[in-house]
This record gives sequence, structure tokens and C-alpha cells, in this order.
Amino acid sequence: MIILKLGGSVITRKDSIDPALDNENLNRIAKEISEASKNARYGELIVVHGAGSFGHPYAKKYDIGGSIPDKKEFQRKRKGFCITQEAVKNLNSAVCNELRKYGIPAVSVQPSSFVITKNKRIIRADLTLIQKYLDSGFVPVLYGDPVLDEDETIKMAILSGDQIISYIGKNLKPDRVILGSDVNGVYKKDPKKYPNAKPVKVVGSMEDLESAEGTQNVDVTGGMGGKITELLELAEIGVESEILNAGTPDLIKRALMGEKGIGTLIKLQN
Amino acid sequence: MIILKLGGSVITRKDSIDPALDNENLNRIAKEISEASKNARYGELIVVHGAGSFGHPYAKKYDIGGSIPDKKEFQRKRKGFCITQEAVKNLNSAVCNELRKYGIPAVSVQPSSFVITKNKRIIRADLTLIQKYLDSGFVPVLYGDPVLDEDETIKMAILSGDQIISYIGKNLKPDRVILGSDVNGVYKKDPKKYPNAKPVKVVGSMEDLESAEGTQNVDVTGGMGGKITELLELAEIGVESEILNAGTPDLIKRALMGEKGIGTLIKLQN
Repeated sequence: MIILKLGGSVITRKDSIDPALDNENLNRIAKEISEASKNARYGELIVVHGAGSFGHPYAKKYDIGGSIPDKKEFQRKRKGFCITQEAVKNLNSAVCNELRKYGIPAVSVQPSSFVITKNKRIIRADLTLIQKYLDSGFVPVLYGDPVLDEDETIKMAILSGDQIISYIGKNLKPDRVILGSDVNGVYKKDPKKYPNAKPVKVVGSMEDLESAEGTQNVDVTGGMGGKITELLELAEIGVESEILNAGTPDLIKRALMGEKGIGTLIKLQN
Repeated sequence: MIILKLGGSVITRKDSIDPALDNENLNRIAKEISEASKNARYGELIVVHGAGSFGHPYAKKYDIGGSIPDKKEFQRKRKGFCITQEAVKNLNSAVCNELRKYGIPAVSVQPSSFVITKNKRIIRADLTLIQKYLDSGFVPVLYGDPVLDEDETIKMAILSGDQIISYIGKNLKPDRVILGSDVNGVYKKDPKKYPNAKPVKVVGSMEDLESAEGTQNVDVTGGMGGKITELLELAEIGVESEILNAGTPDLIKRALMGEKGIGTLIKLQN
């Protein structure tokens, strides 16, 4: 089984103030998934997508996951929760519809219907149903979603697609995790500042990302730090992942068909 | 806590070939719920709605819940499952949006994300999350949805709003169940054939529905038979329900505010 992450920055116009799809990317990626599944040796796939401009503007506006000083702020956040849930659900419909257009039996699985977090980490999520969908050849499609949080000071949280991947990865042990991002992989230096920078081939520990020049605290670009920490935890239990550029045609397809090393592999070094 | 059912025949144009909302009813009912919740003594509400023209045409076309003779038919039904799921999700979005328009913190809870049936009856559905939404003052909105079924001969089933009500009713013990239908209540005689027929005031057993003239097997109109059997089971554990006409203005509001006996009460006789 493969888990494929589609970053919100790939399938939506992330900098848009209002929810906006990147139709071109979404259509191309759905086509690639369909083409790969005709040829691939595996039969099972879970798709997890981010929220992009469908979620972040609302989550930020209503500060979902922030502390709740009084009843009025609680009510404001609760309203924001409902609005955010609706918006990301619409994105999920767009993704599922596009996948179905290419014959993929995409079934929506709504995290806010079965996941509970505590201090923003999943503490309750029964994956039985997802396994059953896989067993019947469906492609479950999950996504970043607001969820209830058991920490009384915040009561709600935004569950990211990355955390979903980490949780499913640990529990269902996929053969591979493929993360379709808007960058070519993991860099030691910011590729926007250093145009010649190339992505690291393999990350086996956080030390691999320390600068060759010996500088400390090298920024891992694009909020990759937390993501890599989670992926290294997966690597430790034997689940290998790869971060690649889903904005570049055919990379998702090639990776789904078994090719490795297109972007940055996260796996323990032998 | 109150469970309010909105029949698919009330909020959609049930006889439409394509999914079609009954915007007028939906808007009016959302307004009534909002007005009632400002005055009501209770603070907790679950809304469950049917699928109407958003679900039945697809469920029928693909015969979801029917037996599966071969792989081809399985694939056809699986496709139908995905299409039906998407359509009823769209109806649910319309319902939630309308409720939110009137300030109700409506949160969507997707049955196909947490319910499994066996031979078309729920055998697995964790209601913890629904209780938590209630505790935080959300209004969970569930709906008729296709779900996976553990019976290998059918593999999928259509979970009706009525079965959801029955299951939640038994497990969360609401103070009341209100069923907004397109008829005034339960009749002994078909009111379309007998224009002077009046709905029964109270049903305490199936015997109450036998004709006063002593005829056997009187048809209980509108597919009410199965519904009443389920509601009588609720009555036996002390959960009273009422079937009323949600197409008539103000009845939902009056019932939510505590009035009883507007339509037909289903409760054990003393």
C-alpha cells in the first residue's frame, strides 16, 4: 500500500485570499495517478491532501487551535470551525471528483468525523474503516481538517495532512509514502537564495541536514523541519518516504510506479 | 438533547430525476430551528436528514445493497458508491450552510467515515465524537449515506437517516425524537384515498394501527411500517418520538420548543 500526499500548495493557489483550486495541477495529477495504477504492481492507495487556500485563511482568521480566553472567543472559534470544515470539504469534493473522472474509486473520509486530538496530536482515530475501504479496492481520500481537541484550553485544532500521514503510516505500515510538494526535495540551503542549490538525495537523520560548511541551525526551507522529524519517525519503523515536486509533470506517476530517488528519500542509512 | 429528522421528501424535490433542493422548505426549517433554539430550554440538538433526490436515484441505478454476482458488478457498485457519497455530501453541505446562515453551529458528520453495517444494520459506530460535539454546543448534522457492509454478498449498503436516528436514539438517549415528514402523522387509512382520514394521535404498539373496522394488514402509508417498528423500540427504552409535517410552517419550531401532540406521538401507553 502507498500513501500519496498532495500538498495544499500544489492543488490550490496557496496565496489566494479566497479558496482557489489549481485546476491544471489537480487534473494532471489525477491523470498521473490513474495511469500509474494501470501499470503498478500494488493495488492499494491512500490519498491525503492539504488544505491550501481552502483552509489556511479561515484557520488563521478564527485562530483555530489558539487559546480560548472566554465564551465569546469560544463561540467565534466554533463558528470558524464550521466554516473551515465546509471549505476543506469542498476542496476534498473537487479532488475526489477529479480522481473519479479518471476512473479511480475515490471515497471521501472526513477526519472531523472520526479523529480526536489532544494538544494538537491525534489520540483517537479508528482506522478499521480505512483498511476496509482499501480491502475493497477503494482509494480513501483524507485531508487536513479542523477537529475537536481534548485540551480544554484550545478545544479545537487543525489536523494537518502531514500528521494524518504520520498516524496512518505508523498504524497501517504502507510500503511507501510519497509526498508531492511544490519543491524538488529537501535542501540544506534555501534554493530561492542559492539558485544552484540541489536537493539532498537521502536524509537518514536530522544531522544530514546540517550545513557542510559547519554552520549551525541551517534553516530547512519551506517548513520542512517538522515534516522531516515525522518522516524520520516513520523511517525508524521501516516506512520509507520521498519528498518530490508534484508541480513537475510525471514525477508522481514515476514514483507511484516504483521509481525511487526522484526527490529526497527519507530513510535510515545502512 | 433532541434528535430532529428532516425527511428527504421535505428538503429535496424527491421526484426529481436529478438532485434538486427544496430551497423554500430548507430555508424556512433552518429559520425555525434557529428561532426555537433561542427560546428552548434545552441546549443540545442533533439533526439527521434523508437523501431524497440526492441519493435515491443513484442508489437505485447502481443497486447499492443488492447482491454482487461478479467482479464487474462489484466494480460498478463501487463506482456507484462513490457517486452516491458525493451527491449526498453535497446535500449535507447545503443543509449545513443553511443552518449556519441562521447562526447555528452546524458541523457535518459523515456516516461513511465511521459507520460499518452488517446485513444493512449498524454493527460499528463510535458515537464518542458526536457526544463531544454536543458537549461543545455544536449541532452535528448526519445523513443517509452509503456505507461498507460486512456481509460479503452485498459489501455495501445504504444507511438510512431513520436507522441513524434509531441507533443514536438507543445509545445517546435523547429527551425527544422529532421526525419532520411530508405527511401530518401516521394514518390507519391512506389519506390520499380517504380525504377525511385523520392521523392517529398516539401509537403505543403496532396493534394501535389495526383498522377499527377489524380489517387485517391495513397498509400503513408512506413506508411508515418499518419506521414505526424502530420508533416503538425507542419508546420501549423510554425515548418518545413524534412524526409531524415539516412541510407545514411552524410545526418543527413548535415541537422543538416543547409542544407535543402536533402530529402522531410514538410512546408506550400507560
